[in-house]
Amino acid sequence: MELQNPYYAVIFTSIRTEGDHDYNEMANKMVDLARQQPGFLDVESARDGLGITVSYWESLEAIALWKSNVEHQIAQKKGIRSWYSCYRVRICRVERDYEFKKNKK
Amino acid sequence: MELQNPYYAVIFTSIRTEGDHDYNEMANKMVDLARQQPGFLDVESARDGLGITVSYWESLEAIALWKSNVEHQIAQKKGIRSWYSCYRVRICRVERDYEFKKNKK
Repeated sequence: MELQNPYYAVIFTSIRTEGDHDYNEMANKMVDLARQQPGFLDVESARDGLGITVSYWESLEAIALWKSNVEHQIAQKKGIRSWYSCYRVRICRVERDYEFKKNKK
Repeated sequence: MELQNPYYAVIFTSIRTEGDHDYNEMANKMVDLARQQPGFLDVESARDGLGITVSYWESLEAIALWKSNVEHQIAQKKGIRSWYSCYRVRICRVERDYEFKKNKK
């Protein structure tokens, strides 16, 4: 992903409740759905106790549109009701980025 | 953590090489060291294959100071030489945040 700065990141950190409650199925579905949204750029995710998902977007408008997506709204409600004991969302403007890749020898 | 916006986030995503190469010891040491830096706010980390570490800072100056810290510089070099097959660093301005916490019943 090579991009013109600035773009935007949504940092979503969460602690799960016990049990699956259809979480994994819905989480995968939401990633598939996000990828189809206008202005979507990328998503990265990791969990070991704390979960961190960062999605990247072209604009704040694209983030607002994704937040208001009907299926995503249903997932957000289920997140509050069943999946998360707590979460935090941070909307960020990516000011700059750089990367390192090891050369294959 | 309740903060006046804006503040700053450094999103560090990485793929590890095989083997430890003293990585865990140094990673813990770097977190301890970061916590002592001026302008440090918080750090969150998760890894399952992809690693995501997000650190939060009061200002871009605080981030620059941490990047130039001598012990951190040594760790950065070792990161490139031994620990990471690739990584990406994104410097972000947190525009807003909100959180959810489940009420204990």
